[in-house]
Amino acid sequence: MRKEGRLTRWIGWTVIVAALLLLGFIIGWFAKPTRPNTPNDTASGKYLREFLDEMRPEQIREHLRKFTRLPHLAGTEQNLKYAEQIMKEWKEYGLDSVEMVPYDVLLSYPNKTQPNYISIIDQLGSEVFNTSLAEPVPEGYEDVSNIVPPYSAFSPKGQPEGDLVYVNYGRTEDFFQLERDMRVNATGRIVIVRYGKIFRGNKVKNAMLAGAKGIIMFSDPADYWAAGVLPYPDGWNLPGGGAQRGNVLNLNGAGDPLTPGYPAKEYTYRLSLEDGVGLPKIPVHPIGFHDAINLLKNMGGPIPPNNWKGALNISYRIGPGFTDDFKSQKLRMNIHSNNQITRIYNVIGRIRGALEPDRYVILGGHRDAWVFGGIDPMSGAAVVHETVRSAGRLISKGWRPRRTLIFASWDAEEFGLQGSTEWAEDNAKLLQERAVAYINADSAIEGMYTLRVDCTPSLHTLVYDLTKQIASPEEGEEGVSLYESWHKRDNWTDNRDAPRISKLGSGSDFEAYFIRLGIAAGRARYTKNKKTERYSSYPVYHSVYETFEVVEKFYDPSFKRLRAVAQVRGGLIFQLADSQLLPLDVNQYADALGKYAQSIAQLGHRHPEEMNTYRVSFDSLFSAVENFTVAARDFHERLQTLNKEDPLQLRIVNDQLMYLERAFIDPLGLPGRPFYRHVIFAPSSHNKYAGESFPGIYDALFDIQNSADKQKSWEDVKRQISIAAFTVHAAAMTLTPPS
Amino acid sequence: MRKEGRLTRWIGWTVIVAALLLLGFIIGWFAKPTRPNTPNDTASGKYLREFLDEMRPEQIREHLRKFTRLPHLAGTEQNLKYAEQIMKEWKEYGLDSVEMVPYDVLLSYPNKTQPNYISIIDQLGSEVFNTSLAEPVPEGYEDVSNIVPPYSAFSPKGQPEGDLVYVNYGRTEDFFQLERDMRVNATGRIVIVRYGKIFRGNKVKNAMLAGAKGIIMFSDPADYWAAGVLPYPDGWNLPGGGAQRGNVLNLNGAGDPLTPGYPAKEYTYRLSLEDGVGLPKIPVHPIGFHDAINLLKNMGGPIPPNNWKGALNISYRIGPGFTDDFKSQKLRMNIHSNNQITRIYNVIGRIRGALEPDRYVILGGHRDAWVFGGIDPMSGAAVVHETVRSAGRLISKGWRPRRTLIFASWDAEEFGLQGSTEWAEDNAKLLQERAVAYINADSAIEGMYTLRVDCTPSLHTLVYDLTKQIASPEEGEEGVSLYESWHKRDNWTDNRDAPRISKLGSGSDFEAYFIRLGIAAGRARYTKNKKTERYSSYPVYHSVYETFEVVEKFYDPSFKRLRAVAQVRGGLIFQLADSQLLPLDVNQYADALGKYAQSIAQLGHRHPEEMNTYRVSFDSLFSAVENFTVAARDFHERLQTLNKEDPLQLRIVNDQLMYLERAFIDPLGLPGRPFYRHVIFAPSSHNKYAGESFPGIYDALFDIQNSADKQKSWEDVKRQISIAAFTVHAAAMTLTPPS
Repeated sequence: MRKEGRLTRWIGWTVIVAALLLLGFIIGWFAKPTRPNTPNDTASGKYLREFLDEMRPEQIREHLRKFTRLPHLAGTEQNLKYAEQIMKEWKEYGLDSVEMVPYDVLLSYPNKTQPNYISIIDQLGSEVFNTSLAEPVPEGYEDVSNIVPPYSAFSPKGQPEGDLVYVNYGRTEDFFQLERDMRVNATGRIVIVRYGKIFRGNKVKNAMLAGAKGIIMFSDPADYWAAGVLPYPDGWNLPGGGAQRGNVLNLNGAGDPLTPGYPAKEYTYRLSLEDGVGLPKIPVHPIGFHDAINLLKNMGGPIPPNNWKGALNISYRIGPGFTDDFKSQKLRMNIHSNNQITRIYNVIGRIRGALEPDRYVILGGHRDAWVFGGIDPMSGAAVVHETVRSAGRLISKGWRPRRTLIFASWDAEEFGLQGSTEWAEDNAKLLQERAVAYINADSAIEGMYTLRVDCTPSLHTLVYDLTKQIASPEEGEEGVSLYESWHKRDNWTDNRDAPRISKLGSGSDFEAYFIRLGIAAGRARYTKNKKTERYSSYPVYHSVYETFEVVEKFYDPSFKRLRAVAQVRGGLIFQLADSQLLPLDVNQYADALGKYAQSIAQLGHRHPEEMNTYRVSFDSLFSAVENFTVAARDFHERLQTLNKEDPLQLRIVNDQLMYLERAFIDPLGLPGRPFYRHVIFAPSSHNKYAGESFPGIYDALFDIQNSADKQKSWEDVKRQISIAAFTVHAAAMTLTPPS
Repeated sequence: MRKEGRLTRWIGWTVIVAALLLLGFIIGWFAKPTRPNTPNDTASGKYLREFLDEMRPEQIREHLRKFTRLPHLAGTEQNLKYAEQIMKEWKEYGLDSVEMVPYDVLLSYPNKTQPNYISIIDQLGSEVFNTSLAEPVPEGYEDVSNIVPPYSAFSPKGQPEGDLVYVNYGRTEDFFQLERDMRVNATGRIVIVRYGKIFRGNKVKNAMLAGAKGIIMFSDPADYWAAGVLPYPDGWNLPGGGAQRGNVLNLNGAGDPLTPGYPAKEYTYRLSLEDGVGLPKIPVHPIGFHDAINLLKNMGGPIPPNNWKGALNISYRIGPGFTDDFKSQKLRMNIHSNNQITRIYNVIGRIRGALEPDRYVILGGHRDAWVFGGIDPMSGAAVVHETVRSAGRLISKGWRPRRTLIFASWDAEEFGLQGSTEWAEDNAKLLQERAVAYINADSAIEGMYTLRVDCTPSLHTLVYDLTKQIASPEEGEEGVSLYESWHKRDNWTDNRDAPRISKLGSGSDFEAYFIRLGIAAGRARYTKNKKTERYSSYPVYHSVYETFEVVEKFYDPSFKRLRAVAQVRGGLIFQLADSQLLPLDVNQYADALGKYAQSIAQLGHRHPEEMNTYRVSFDSLFSAVENFTVAARDFHERLQTLNKEDPLQLRIVNDQLMYLERAFIDPLGLPGRPFYRHVIFAPSSHNKYAGESFPGIYDALFDIQNSADKQKSWEDVKRQISIAAFTVHAAAMTLTPPS
């Protein structure tokens, strides 16, 4: 009995001990997480709020003030000084690393001893009128040196003489009309066109193709004057003595004209100037409207249609040359600018990603300005600066994004997006494997009305979600979100109830990232009311009157609009860098492709007989879009059941999201434009500023109008449709479950 | 006291219970693995052994027997039947999926009612001699229909008449010598060249450039006859009535000539035949040496240097035309072949990767044959078949590779690598993001001596490691590894004690994967003794005598050599697909780049004065290679401390390894060859078969010799050096720690 009792007791104890151990084991087993803690989206959301709230209007004001005191043209001492200051401050703000990255690129400057100007000359060749050599300097800046006078960068030297021909905006269709309807030939003449509607480099190219020996561009009040607004400094309109600087290249994405495709380093082979990409072959010069009146007022020849007439009090005759009274007078351009290889500096800052350091989210904007850069680009650069400061604050609180953040202050954007393009060329192999998104940060404001966003379709949803978390900067809209404020002012025009988001064109530093490399990209800024404000860009654009004061007095006295833009740009890179699952919406891309296919097919169907004759069909494109749409929908459905805790499964899906934009790249490039490789989005060949969808098809259809060989032109269209269909099919394949 | 005692006891019990629970908890905590079980390399090693051991000579024999009974030219019924059979058997073997992937590409066939031949005609135009219309059919195959007679695929139709000019091998240097030293002009004449040394398409291009109106290629015994070997069927030499078929395109990687850059699908736009890529513009025809004697024996003109003389018992005169006795005779080619768009079929089989289904390791080889394909390609296809069978066996035992395995049976390789190139074009976007490696599986045997491996440098170490685990197939070498057997027979020539591995050239299906897309690639086969066996390829190459019997009787009676090749090819894809860390050795790439830089600089320094005059330097290239070497060494050092249990860290490093090969791709392509984009490896423009290192520099230097504008030619060299230096620098960047 005793033994038995003891045995029973022993067994009892053993069972209890075993049970306790087992219980402990079970608790231990389940208490231990399967994975090391990964920052989850809730923590990330809290940090996002802190990140946005940390951005301050007065800080942005201070950044803008600091970087607009002196002219800082690309390649000058002052622009290097600002670069050094930015580098220093970004380090102080707490970035992991900041470096200066130089390139030696072709820039263009006026000759300091031989000014550029345009003369009216008499029959003896004597100058009877000369255009001004500089803009009147704005108050407060009288002692500033190194203000570069208005010029067309990369104009060749030359002193062509000839009769003037007025060609409206200098668009392809304007030259068509000139030659075909008005029967005026520009060959051997100097053309004068007004600024606006299209990129000035396209105007120059058109003038060259028309055989002109020179081209003058002027700012017409019809295009650079807001109704009821005074000229600077009493308002934000362009004074008559102001003129628009700008480069007149046709680079089509090549970057430095002498090193297309490769970074302009010390050892890099350089083309000769004759072989350089996109350099104009005829002299070019810009003038303001005071000077323009003097050149235009005595012109002879036919009176143009009304849509060729600007707002000057003259009759806008076509020419060639002057009226009978002034018949002996001609025009002479005096251009002495120099092209020279010059060192430029990008500033690149980084925050290393905690979990995926090999995934990059980039916020980049340029620093170089034509003069002070009050709006372009420093309103944007100030916003980037504030974003870096706020990110640095988070870092100091222990935050670190999942992916790597890269901040860039680009140089020489004004000379053809050179700083950003050279860096993209330098890092192309890394970027194409690793870049998640590129957010551009040029001018943050061009009007006082509402938000403007241009981005790739897969970013639409993120933009909407984010702007709902940002406050409207408008007076009297306390408690209203930026989304609501924007939605109210600029609803999508067609069948959709949401704020309008537009396609990306070109003309700023996202170009190489988006159109060449296929990295998802977007830009955001504050803008004017397009319906009522019809002028191009903003009146003082690229003039000496782009000062700190034009922002502080008129565009954004409270600096809340700039803060809102900072929150949008900053919020975008935060979410892209820190979300577990990339916030890219593939269904939005499918929707957009459907609309684009409809609209390009409509353009084709303007020629129903020819489409029939040459057996042109858009069916293959529609079928590809349908295929993509199904793949996108299935992809998002599968996301519902994704195990986000499995790092490999998550990475695989994120890679599909990241590489979707890349799938739209055709390595062969668009016809004749090897560096424009995005099959869905690129500027048309006729206007760098405007983003076209299916640009290959668009350009081929554009050429139909004036084609001598219809058969060949329609073959081009068919080939482009086939390439677009293939590309969309191939992109759809990237969304199917990998195996 | 009692209370106290109870309390003490309670405390005692509580402590014991807590301790037990804690102990259990601790055991539970540490017993639980941090990650779900991942297949580790030890398990993988066991499976590798099983995978290799499962491959059987008698199975390979059976596969080869099965697929060589009937002619199966690309685009024919029989080749589709074999495709269907392969698909069926791969499914039975246990692949996850097998699909048939068709394309519609341009092929070329003789006209069935109007045979191709060459005549000697008299002054009346009557045919006094005609070449044979077909090869004598080998014994046992007398009843076989659909044996295509020897022809040059893609020759245009035509019946040119003219005098013969003999131009040795038809190489660039042969034509130089003809025109410069022998002062004979090929313009307006028909050239006759011997097969060998370079790709036949290059001979045709050279003849076109020289202005010839037609070109005949013959197999000279000096190049297609092994000493002391009888002609087939008594030995493996080429009978005098045998001739080498083959395409004469200059595609430079374009694939289907009518759809360069895009897959040849139903909706794909097709170029016109005139605009097609690489199509020869003059008639071309191949003959055997019996016929060649008749064309050559009466030729007049100078006697050539000895290295122009083959092994026929004639004097190999240059021409033009015949000796005085036959002066009135001329040559007429009668070519009636048709180009036609034809459906071809790839078979694609897959084993889905267990952990990284979005990483692809590809084993691909072609199925189409000129006739029976006893060696080319079915010795390779049989090896792939056996590899699939063995992989299927592993699958049935529960194995699944870490990454996805893709098996491909390509079509229309003989017509310009079309099946593989179209599939690469179709899947380019997936492949460039996801493909780890491509192993080629064309002919598995071309000699009886030892192993031959051509591969990218980063695969060298894996090839050595693997061949140490495979047995020598040679008689009397029981217990000797393939590595030792190979090492003994073909040691690296220069400073290294290891078996020789060569560069990849082109001429088989790896081309689009390696040279266009930049996917690490390799090939392996059994080969002849290069030192003693001087004939080109193997004697019966592309003739009707490439039968099952030529392998069974002469090349590999035991089928152990083919088994060894299967184990090499299979072992490579196994290791690439299943190793945790990718078995790619970046240091080997650094070593190779160092050697290549040395050797290309030596080539430049053959012109020391000109290099001085035009200021040409290889310094930037050497400095880039140095940079790469340091980056490679550091990369491998960091691998020592890599936490392979962290799936993200492992993936990041594997991505660096995978994308290294991609970093050598220049999206702009080599000069004039947009589909050859690998800056380190590509064939020279003068011979598709030979892989050159730094091909851009090589070609530019090649052009120096005969250049009229030295300045321009040296500028080309400088530009190519700069591009190479940039590419190597950029590749080095991909190896640094990402951030």
